[in-house]
Amino acid sequence: MLQVVIIGSGNVAQHLIKAFATTLQVQLVQAFARHPENLSHLLPQEKITNSFDDIAEADVYIIAVSDDSITEVSSQLPVKGKLVVHTSGSAGLDQLDAKNRRGVFYPLQTFTKNKSVDFSLVPICLESEHKEDYRLLETLGYALANSVYRIDSAQRQALHVAAVFVSNFTNHLYGIGSTVCKENHIPFDILKPLIKETASKITTLTPLQAQTGPAIRNDKKTLQRHLAFLQNTNQKEIYTLLTQSIQKANEQKL
Amino acid sequence: MLQVVIIGSGNVAQHLIKAFATTLQVQLVQAFARHPENLSHLLPQEKITNSFDDIAEADVYIIAVSDDSITEVSSQLPVKGKLVVHTSGSAGLDQLDAKNRRGVFYPLQTFTKNKSVDFSLVPICLESEHKEDYRLLETLGYALANSVYRIDSAQRQALHVAAVFVSNFTNHLYGIGSTVCKENHIPFDILKPLIKETASKITTLTPLQAQTGPAIRNDKKTLQRHLAFLQNTNQKEIYTLLTQSIQKANEQKL
Repeated sequence: MLQVVIIGSGNVAQHLIKAFATTLQVQLVQAFARHPENLSHLLPQEKITNSFDDIAEADVYIIAVSDDSITEVSSQLPVKGKLVVHTSGSAGLDQLDAKNRRGVFYPLQTFTKNKSVDFSLVPICLESEHKEDYRLLETLGYALANSVYRIDSAQRQALHVAAVFVSNFTNHLYGIGSTVCKENHIPFDILKPLIKETASKITTLTPLQAQTGPAIRNDKKTLQRHLAFLQNTNQKEIYTLLTQSIQKANEQKL
Repeated sequence: MLQVVIIGSGNVAQHLIKAFATTLQVQLVQAFARHPENLSHLLPQEKITNSFDDIAEADVYIIAVSDDSITEVSSQLPVKGKLVVHTSGSAGLDQLDAKNRRGVFYPLQTFTKNKSVDFSLVPICLESEHKEDYRLLETLGYALANSVYRIDSAQRQALHVAAVFVSNFTNHLYGIGSTVCKENHIPFDILKPLIKETASKITTLTPLQAQTGPAIRNDKKTLQRHLAFLQNTNQKEIYTLLTQSIQKANEQKL
């Protein structure tokens, strides 16, 4: 059985702790948290430490902290020659201290407090400095999830940017839709089936095949009416820029 | 049993024809198409006409044509004092000829060829010029769908703009994500669970509660790295504008 220590107590750390609790192939031997109370609802007290002096023996150390803290935490970690991975989509392998065998275990999902996630559906992106460690990370990945991908640091950077577009930016467009509804006394619920279907369509069509609406039809009257309707400068700018971008992508068949 | 004639043969018309075929409360007596062959896979020949002279008697005439053609088609329709509705999110009630009792039957969904839609989950937005026609439209709506909303022309305009943000623009962001993946030899499939979860989160959280990512954390290092990564001017502009917009919305708690 693979023995794992998790370092961190944020969203990703907590979702990982919950997910490992459901697997038989992996034993979470300890979690490190500066403030142990952050994890006390998930683990018994004896499994939580806030001191690097007490860190347990394990096969893999998973550093699930904010990107800016990865370097510091990995250099403080008092182990040598061990497999140490971070969980960041954005940080390179080289942000880990070279005293250990380095790797990345990046679950590509949006983790929010108070919203559970089915980890079996989360793609896990793996990278290892040493070839022989890849197999172990793969075992760890498949213990939690159905799909595991080999993604190097340069690809992971690209993937993280792509994820910002399809998730963070998309969610913000939901926010604008919600604001427009509220201002016009329309329940936001009315848009939810549309949001769901839009996300569902690209499982069987490419985004270009799935594109509908006035921009791709170059329906000038509707585009003008919409711009005249929007009073908020920021929303107007976004409308204009994304409309142009849809039309450019359509010309270039992107 | 409500008798219906559909005028049009595009995406919305075809999805409506399919949906009415499954209901017991509504009988589709005829469909009008300039090119009957567009509907020949859906209806027997005797139910399709391309001549307004042959238009059948019905309780409701549903004009499902492009926005620009609504006025012309509704004035050509050789009936008087009948309930005539269009299906557009963007056109006003007044684009229908006043010789008939006017209304709107707007199914708020993204309809694409070769992608079936579960009509029971599509919200139907209704408006009627005459109070007594609303009940009939409601019956028509509930024959197809579980939820029906009273939405006037001004609200429908707002709703259509909101729908462009949450659906057309969102789909385009999926397209940018797909392009970034392709350029970096990453399968787009890896992003699909994230896309699905992002759409699912807003069924239980507000978009602002659901917002994650470097913009809302104001994680300047990651934002700079992402902008340095993006070489395409258009993608850079979208990244910058949406990042600023997320930060503004967060300040104003929108």
